[in-house]
Amino acid sequence: VSGKTPVVTLLEGDTPLIRARNLEEKIGFAAQIYLKYEGMNPTGSFKDRGMTVAISKAAEAGSSTVICASTGNTSASAAAYAARAKMRCIVLIPDGAIALGKLSQALAHGAEVFAVSGNFDEALKIVRELSENYPLTLVNSLNPYRIEGQKTAAFEIIETLGRAPDFHFIPVGNAGNITAYWKGYKEFASGKFGLKVESGKLKDDSAHYPLSAIHRPLPHMMGFQAEGAAPIVRGAPVEKPQTVATAIRIGNPASWRQAVAARDESGGVIGIVTDDEILSAYKLLSSMEGVFCEPASAASVAGLIKYKNVIANPAKGGGKQSHPVVVCTLTGHGLKDPDCAVKNASRPVSVPCDAKKIISLLRIKQ
Amino acid sequence: VSGKTPVVTLLEGDTPLIRARNLEEKIGFAAQIYLKYEGMNPTGSFKDRGMTVAISKAAEAGSSTVICASTGNTSASAAAYAARAKMRCIVLIPDGAIALGKLSQALAHGAEVFAVSGNFDEALKIVRELSENYPLTLVNSLNPYRIEGQKTAAFEIIETLGRAPDFHFIPVGNAGNITAYWKGYKEFASGKFGLKVESGKLKDDSAHYPLSAIHRPLPHMMGFQAEGAAPIVRGAPVEKPQTVATAIRIGNPASWRQAVAARDESGGVIGIVTDDEILSAYKLLSSMEGVFCEPASAASVAGLIKYKNVIANPAKGGGKQSHPVVVCTLTGHGLKDPDCAVKNASRPVSVPCDAKKIISLLRIKQ
Repeated sequence: VSGKTPVVTLLEGDTPLIRARNLEEKIGFAAQIYLKYEGMNPTGSFKDRGMTVAISKAAEAGSSTVICASTGNTSASAAAYAARAKMRCIVLIPDGAIALGKLSQALAHGAEVFAVSGNFDEALKIVRELSENYPLTLVNSLNPYRIEGQKTAAFEIIETLGRAPDFHFIPVGNAGNITAYWKGYKEFASGKFGLKVESGKLKDDSAHYPLSAIHRPLPHMMGFQAEGAAPIVRGAPVEKPQTVATAIRIGNPASWRQAVAARDESGGVIGIVTDDEILSAYKLLSSMEGVFCEPASAASVAGLIKYKNVIANPAKGGGKQSHPVVVCTLTGHGLKDPDCAVKNASRPVSVPCDAKKIISLLRIKQ
Repeated sequence: VSGKTPVVTLLEGDTPLIRARNLEEKIGFAAQIYLKYEGMNPTGSFKDRGMTVAISKAAEAGSSTVICASTGNTSASAAAYAARAKMRCIVLIPDGAIALGKLSQALAHGAEVFAVSGNFDEALKIVRELSENYPLTLVNSLNPYRIEGQKTAAFEIIETLGRAPDFHFIPVGNAGNITAYWKGYKEFASGKFGLKVESGKLKDDSAHYPLSAIHRPLPHMMGFQAEGAAPIVRGAPVEKPQTVATAIRIGNPASWRQAVAARDESGGVIGIVTDDEILSAYKLLSSMEGVFCEPASAASVAGLIKYKNVIANPAKGGGKQSHPVVVCTLTGHGLKDPDCAVKNASRPVSVPCDAKKIISLLRIKQ
């Protein structure tokens, strides 16, 4: 991005890193857990970080039309930034497999939305082909500017904590985000952008985690796929991916190789969580921490719960801490998929307009 | 809030002030228009600013249960912060008149939701009565801590612009928000908190708007009610309020008196916009600026469009600028009411999984 780039921005990024003390207590092991709440971006997901760069660079190149395949979040973001840049936006979504909130966004922002009788991977194949042969700028995460924007979340985490976390848990779908975070962590550590840790201590409980105790400048990257859509874990594409977590319902990730590299270079894991584990983490987050995320986001916390014994008892002599600092990325807001929340909660109780009747139902005494 | 207050926070506030250049062009008059995008709070609306204070003070006072009446946003916020504080949260909503997104939030955060066979005003009457007679803390905007938190949005606007705007447009429902902004502007101007304008200039186009040209340290407060729910404008409560903008579907505002005072003290207006005008502004914002808000939020921009001639041609000699700086508050995120967006946009087009077929529909040439 240079002085000549017409920056198209909705003032994305700078999302909160929320301490999850109730979750720490519930999981029951000594760690500091932070939630990187990416739902607080303008279109409600982390996609905005990369989209501002992709659309700005498309505008600089004189492009008038952008295209993407999407499980929903990418299309919401592409449509919003394209509207702002006065560009035409074409979106291919898998028919019937996109959450209501996300669909409402692409439509509201004026994208031309095509529901393809196929899954995400097939839609992505088509948009790749079209963008190679027609004057259409591809804004899926294959577009390298997307990753450049998304890596800023890692910068923010280090700046907020005053250090890198020990473990970073993250959902893995098309695998662009784990790629971007790992790139961000590595670049920060290398001093490439003149970035440096300014504070020597964590923001709170600093007495227990002085910076001097840190031996690794980089986290272990812990990526999680849904059981029915876990091609990287299984080592082969999944023909018909299935999961309640629609945002990671992807059978052949575009950034597969980079995700494996992030895992291996960081000494991390790419693991599986079931839909039940995802929904259980989803409910814990909203009912105990007040943090409402979309189901796919909860794959990170489901992974943490699954691996808590591994990270609480690291191999001896590895220089790791016994009280690790853990960050979980929550990729999108719960409002992206309101139906999932309503389906997984109790119903409202219908009552007459009568104070006495209501207080008797509440069983509260004067 | 003192050192003893157990602060319950989701890191709300600090929302973007987004320049709306496409809207300026579309409306066609010389002004700087900024959108205070309160949808980027943790639960997707401005209510979080006041709720963090109300719940923190309730926790300090030892309260274990909070209660509110709500058209949706208050309940979403109360439920989230109560969950985080491990409090019981009781919510009364008007039966059938609450947007899906908001309902999903109250349920996901574990509130006990009662759908009352009445409107908001009747539900508010019940929760007032119950909170007076039972150990329940009321967290509607009648709770003074709510207003104290909400006024911070005015502080942020002045800090970002380096000055107060000339006009502040805002939706008016229960009228707590216009009350809070006006309080915030007045307190900032009075220097009460040691707050001061640090920069002498606006962030951009500063050459045209030097601070020295400003004669008024306070904006005109421009509040807008929906045509079918405009008690303040009509001078009498509305028995059965009706509007597509569910968040301001209120017939007897709790902060009526304060809203009138804000209008009169600031030399402002409380006016009416129709549902058509609201929906038209709602569509302009999402399709031209990439900013997706809930319908009620768009009442501010609908009001601006309605009053553009008034503010573009101020009375002579009044010390006002001919190129005013305008802020419109967008109270909540568009994801709060996805059904409204889907209803007001074109449908997705179903297509086979076939690149050739899709490119022919797009009418794009190689």
